[in-house]
Amino acid sequence: MEISARLIEVPSSPIRKLLPLAQKAKSQGVTVFHLNIGDPDIKTPLPMIKVLKNWQINPIGYDLSQGNSRFIQSLLFYYHQLGHGFLDEKNIQVTTGGSEAIAMAMFAVANPGDEILVFEPFYANYNSYAVTSGIRLVPITTNISDGFHLPPAEVIRRAITTRTRAILYCNPNNPTGTVYTQTEIEMLVDIARKYKIFLLSDEVYREYVFDHRRQISLFNYMEKNPQNTLVLDSMSKRYSACGLRLGTLVTLNDKISSGVLKIAQGRLSCGLIDQEAASALSQLLPNYYTQIRDEFARRRDVLYPGLQAIPGVVIPKPEGAFYVIARLPVDSSERFCQWLLTDFRHRQQTVMLAPASGFYATGKLGQSQVRIAYVLNCRKLARAVELLKLALQVYPNTR
Amino acid sequence: MEISARLIEVPSSPIRKLLPLAQKAKSQGVTVFHLNIGDPDIKTPLPMIKVLKNWQINPIGYDLSQGNSRFIQSLLFYYHQLGHGFLDEKNIQVTTGGSEAIAMAMFAVANPGDEILVFEPFYANYNSYAVTSGIRLVPITTNISDGFHLPPAEVIRRAITTRTRAILYCNPNNPTGTVYTQTEIEMLVDIARKYKIFLLSDEVYREYVFDHRRQISLFNYMEKNPQNTLVLDSMSKRYSACGLRLGTLVTLNDKISSGVLKIAQGRLSCGLIDQEAASALSQLLPNYYTQIRDEFARRRDVLYPGLQAIPGVVIPKPEGAFYVIARLPVDSSERFCQWLLTDFRHRQQTVMLAPASGFYATGKLGQSQVRIAYVLNCRKLARAVELLKLALQVYPNTR
Repeated sequence: MEISARLIEVPSSPIRKLLPLAQKAKSQGVTVFHLNIGDPDIKTPLPMIKVLKNWQINPIGYDLSQGNSRFIQSLLFYYHQLGHGFLDEKNIQVTTGGSEAIAMAMFAVANPGDEILVFEPFYANYNSYAVTSGIRLVPITTNISDGFHLPPAEVIRRAITTRTRAILYCNPNNPTGTVYTQTEIEMLVDIARKYKIFLLSDEVYREYVFDHRRQISLFNYMEKNPQNTLVLDSMSKRYSACGLRLGTLVTLNDKISSGVLKIAQGRLSCGLIDQEAASALSQLLPNYYTQIRDEFARRRDVLYPGLQAIPGVVIPKPEGAFYVIARLPVDSSERFCQWLLTDFRHRQQTVMLAPASGFYATGKLGQSQVRIAYVLNCRKLARAVELLKLALQVYPNTR
Repeated sequence: MEISARLIEVPSSPIRKLLPLAQKAKSQGVTVFHLNIGDPDIKTPLPMIKVLKNWQINPIGYDLSQGNSRFIQSLLFYYHQLGHGFLDEKNIQVTTGGSEAIAMAMFAVANPGDEILVFEPFYANYNSYAVTSGIRLVPITTNISDGFHLPPAEVIRRAITTRTRAILYCNPNNPTGTVYTQTEIEMLVDIARKYKIFLLSDEVYREYVFDHRRQISLFNYMEKNPQNTLVLDSMSKRYSACGLRLGTLVTLNDKISSGVLKIAQGRLSCGLIDQEAASALSQLLPNYYTQIRDEFARRRDVLYPGLQAIPGVVIPKPEGAFYVIARLPVDSSERFCQWLLTDFRHRQQTVMLAPASGFYATGKLGQSQVRIAYVLNCRKLARAVELLKLALQVYPNTR
């Protein structure tokens, strides 16, 4: 009666595995500032909440496996407004969070033992989906010194083998906050076309780009590359509704669409209530998105100079999303993050960060780094930065 | 840019694949009686709906990966009331529908290429999860002639190989409506113990047993077999809330619990709204469950004699759940089910059934059989039976 070998291989989430320590601290009356997880404190839009308050549907039955029709129409409204008028109902598969979109995409493009290229540090949960679908993630390292931008094409080409089936990237990037340039995206599109591999673009943070940057969506290249491009999306961050568990897998490749629909039929449907609520996205004004973006930019402008001023901290200026990878003057960020929860207190407060090693696949990379999610308001964020500064002053294990 | 070979292998749902034909019929003004899918017309309990109407939480953020604390407490309340007081918070993993519970269980107990025994006809979606986790389902055939009860132990033992990791069964059974006796369940428990394999008990229809039968839960044997027993559960049928997408994986095996929690962390959390709503289950009176059971028994008492009276139809008396497998006097139930949707109309009405071949893994079994879900009220059900009778009278391809 042994459990499966692969169950042992599933990695613990670097974002969540320290939660028991946080809960213990809280039970001792300690306030924990959560910068470990991308769960923003911004309110979910009222039109979505109103759907709940005015709820009429009963029984709460299954929805269509592809997705609730009303929700798909509202998604099309959103994508069309962004300028991607070529997208049609049949191109959209609704998923249980962006998570399921990524898992389905991996399953759809690669067989067990096949390889998918990722740029490390990368969203740690990619590891989970890779293990559950038996795929090997092949990391291409990016560096804090150039703000984690992509390496030259030849570095990527060298990583391609006969088993390589896709390049998976996140733009704007979780965990680094990097926004890829048009040149970078076009490099990936060219490589994917040349080597006949898929491009999987995780665009969950599409709206969150700062300093007049533009997010270069893979949608811009989808009509010219209809067979090998997939966009993976989520409602979680855009509408500050992580608990809605809704995402999308978007592609013009009919074989992928009909294939993932079969997987979707197997799990019947996404939540009816969540889809009905999320359909209210079409009632939001265009300035909804810019308001949220500006709020994250303000937070970035608290976090970035604050961290920069701490001796020994190395931090690239975040360009988008609401994350940054920072290098701290500690030997092991894992031990430091634990210590923050178990030992460090200042006025009964501490801060929770995600150790960055879980975002790397290569050996010992990231051991002094942390991922910081700036999902708290500016006042709390300023205090969290102060706590981190105080903590580093007294941490016994600094270099 | 080929899609993965395994994506092609994912089976279409026999329950849902004819939906486009049904939608077309509806667009022509035809009323379709849906007996193809277990999506009951019974109302979701009002206390759950009230949670929506009184919604206060904002933002709708992630919940805990193991499950919402309030929801887990209400589940414990329910399981303890059933007499399983040994169950503790740590034994429960909340899942996105029973679907995820089954998928997680398969992944947890078997490696790619390993075998899991199932009794065919079996819930067709087991096939999807088997393909997505690379497992081979090994079918042991049960027969309409004895109401699809289990074969003798020696038949099951003969199917066990060195790759067999588990027996997965559903009790009360979807799709057959069979309720296994205490002798049958104890036979499975004995075999699993002797051969050191897991028992996965899908008990989604626990309450729905007729004619003074008792459902023999695997929970009754869990304390004596803590390492190899898993119960898979769902809120969908019990609370007529299929669209809530909530289930549970329950086990005393700590390695399984901590393993599936890692998978759960990878997909972050189940829906917050659904879990908050479902927590209201603890407000239901015990007679809630008997009322619903009695309603399904009444429906069974419309369906069963009605179908029995149709010449050429073979149907065992359903013992539980709200399904039955019936043999029809047709060569191909697949073609017949299609024809019902495309050609047959009586007073602009028709009926949708699920062809049973998709519930079998062995060759051509089930080709004259259909699965009927009696999820409509007695009046509609009587009309659906009448439609089926009329259809069989005029169907050109009867035997």
